[in-house]
Amino acid sequence: MALVVQKFGGTSVANGERMREVADHVRRTRARGDDVVLVVSAMGKETDELLRLANEVSKTQPGREMDMLITAGERKAIALMCMALHDMGIPADSFTGSQAGFLTDTNHRNAKILQVRPDRVRATVDAGRVAVVAGAQGVSTSNDVTFLGRGGSDTTAVALAHGLGADACELYTDVSGVFTTDPRVCETARKIPRISFDELLEMTAVGCPKPVMRSVEVARAYGVPLHVRSAFTWEPGTWVVKEVPDMEKAIISAVVPDTSQAKVTITGVPDKPGIAAELFRALADANVNVDMIVQNVSDHGVTDISFTVPREHLVAATTITSDMAAHIGAQKVATDDSIGRVSVVGAGMASNPGVAATMFETLSNTGVNIEMISTSAIRISCVIAEVDVDRATVALHDAFELGQG
Amino acid sequence: MALVVQKFGGTSVANGERMREVADHVRRTRARGDDVVLVVSAMGKETDELLRLANEVSKTQPGREMDMLITAGERKAIALMCMALHDMGIPADSFTGSQAGFLTDTNHRNAKILQVRPDRVRATVDAGRVAVVAGAQGVSTSNDVTFLGRGGSDTTAVALAHGLGADACELYTDVSGVFTTDPRVCETARKIPRISFDELLEMTAVGCPKPVMRSVEVARAYGVPLHVRSAFTWEPGTWVVKEVPDMEKAIISAVVPDTSQAKVTITGVPDKPGIAAELFRALADANVNVDMIVQNVSDHGVTDISFTVPREHLVAATTITSDMAAHIGAQKVATDDSIGRVSVVGAGMASNPGVAATMFETLSNTGVNIEMISTSAIRISCVIAEVDVDRATVALHDAFELGQG
Repeated sequence: MALVVQKFGGTSVANGERMREVADHVRRTRARGDDVVLVVSAMGKETDELLRLANEVSKTQPGREMDMLITAGERKAIALMCMALHDMGIPADSFTGSQAGFLTDTNHRNAKILQVRPDRVRATVDAGRVAVVAGAQGVSTSNDVTFLGRGGSDTTAVALAHGLGADACELYTDVSGVFTTDPRVCETARKIPRISFDELLEMTAVGCPKPVMRSVEVARAYGVPLHVRSAFTWEPGTWVVKEVPDMEKAIISAVVPDTSQAKVTITGVPDKPGIAAELFRALADANVNVDMIVQNVSDHGVTDISFTVPREHLVAATTITSDMAAHIGAQKVATDDSIGRVSVVGAGMASNPGVAATMFETLSNTGVNIEMISTSAIRISCVIAEVDVDRATVALHDAFELGQG
Repeated sequence: MALVVQKFGGTSVANGERMREVADHVRRTRARGDDVVLVVSAMGKETDELLRLANEVSKTQPGREMDMLITAGERKAIALMCMALHDMGIPADSFTGSQAGFLTDTNHRNAKILQVRPDRVRATVDAGRVAVVAGAQGVSTSNDVTFLGRGGSDTTAVALAHGLGADACELYTDVSGVFTTDPRVCETARKIPRISFDELLEMTAVGCPKPVMRSVEVARAYGVPLHVRSAFTWEPGTWVVKEVPDMEKAIISAVVPDTSQAKVTITGVPDKPGIAAELFRALADANVNVDMIVQNVSDHGVTDISFTVPREHLVAATTITSDMAAHIGAQKVATDDSIGRVSVVGAGMASNPGVAATMFETLSNTGVNIEMISTSAIRISCVIAEVDVDRATVALHDAFELGQG
């Protein structure tokens, strides 16, 4: 008999019918002899709707009040989910983040968990009942309601699984697992049965949609086994674990396409110490998420710096970089919002030389030009034209023999 | 400088525009030098929508989960209301029922307040800020979220005004005060500037729409002055106070029409002790709200009992009464859902004989037949045909000279 934390996202609990399907899945899990703790997000597009209301009412949107507003969404979902379980004869109790013992810092809209004391959740499980916990919320050290941020329900589930000493944390999503590449782009994409935390983190970092990076970091830190699977097909998904045994390990696990970024290039930057630091500090202060950074070698005392940002941050990034360019005496700022990126990820590449060479050759043979390169111990990413992303993805998936059959 | 608790119902905070109007009213109140604590209900039809969701998901609808669900509505409203205040430059903090110190019993869906400890609300007011408190909610002695029932926001406001020692509790509604009768029925209806708690309780008991009887009972018990007024015209409304000075006191304060009731008559009831008790206990156990009860004198060892119930309880009342009739050997059960009621209310009638006579004469002269009569120290109610209610109301309003000019 195991204790399983099951987390369901917004689309999985979007209406009464979906909730009844989740309740039926809980029934099947319990029939196997396992105890279940559920974590649920707000229903469907509820969080977006609450943000729309806030925009209608307010320009200032103070964090404390935004969190009070947004956390109402998960409260509705946990109450309704409990009712669906009751109707199926399964005893269940709902818990807000505060009731479930999630103590956070006071950083509203994006609070960090300080401690989880799930005493009430534990008592409910011990009484043979299902605990249904509101995702992405807690109570701060100042006794105010806090929101952990979009996608925070995954983090709630993982932290709760750790706090309860659960045997596994299942993240139910609208995809059926982690794939060797985007199945919409490449028809030979294959579901990966087991993958390491590190590999998944690198994939998430370069645009793999699920699960949320922060939750994977927490799961890795505490060694909580994750199971990423579908709330629509209910088939087994991908297990995310500390180490995948060597026998199973491919050199490359996945090819990750991404078209969410834009590129900013600042040219003719005086090559003096502290210039880059000043620029990226200014961007960080404005909450612009800088991803890849490439600085070319200095030539005649000036250098060029390129970096990528999410497209929705491009306007802010351009404004800040242009101000900075005038300030530091750089030549000009250029932007490109039609870039794409393709990455290969795999824990095996550290001990297998030649992966980079194979990647660059494959792109070259496919007629795809590389604009920027960035690497980690288990990932290589290339910035290319957005129009080339699908073609590059299929070619790399082929080249590294990730396909089915 | 006074401390005023202002309560706004759902229609008063139905959207961003209405919320901004409330915020502006708070600004004007503060400009006068007064401190303000707001109590708000869920926006517009939100509570109905949450109930619809519960019906979609669940037949069992356990109380603990229903309260978790429904209280989400007020949370949204307080957060958005605070944002509207912030945008107007007015510092404000929202508080759930639990945060505002409302401790209740564990009677879900209709919890009773045990204690109010508004320490956090007090601290916010002392800091020169506006506290915005969620209506109709609290936390139970078992640490669960509780809902005080529909209309519970009025009770929250009154209890909070008492707990804070506020100078007044203003209930903003969609009517501009308490009238001598329904202005839709009688065009000479006049707004009453001051009325006693007892009179308002009698009026509420016989169908006067606002405010909620329970809140008036609490206000009377603690001597909290109420001001019932409009959130649309913002004009002064009706003050509800302990005693209205004699000089101002009319013999009759108001004529209250009501068409929300149905009548049940059980005939040929054996005239034995305990029969009536058994019947009304069975009705009470089924949560049927019995209002007027009339038992005719016994004749040949059998008697007739008539009573009124809200029309939505008629089916339940008929079923129970029919079962009971068979059980106790009564003759038959008849029902009538086309009755109406008209009541005259006034603290002055206790010391002015002849009010009943005037009432019966007026109805007789208007050709209205009286089916049932019930009286209290300050109220006389007559059950008549539903079709006669408007005509009877106008005639009585005239007869007691309640009109304007």
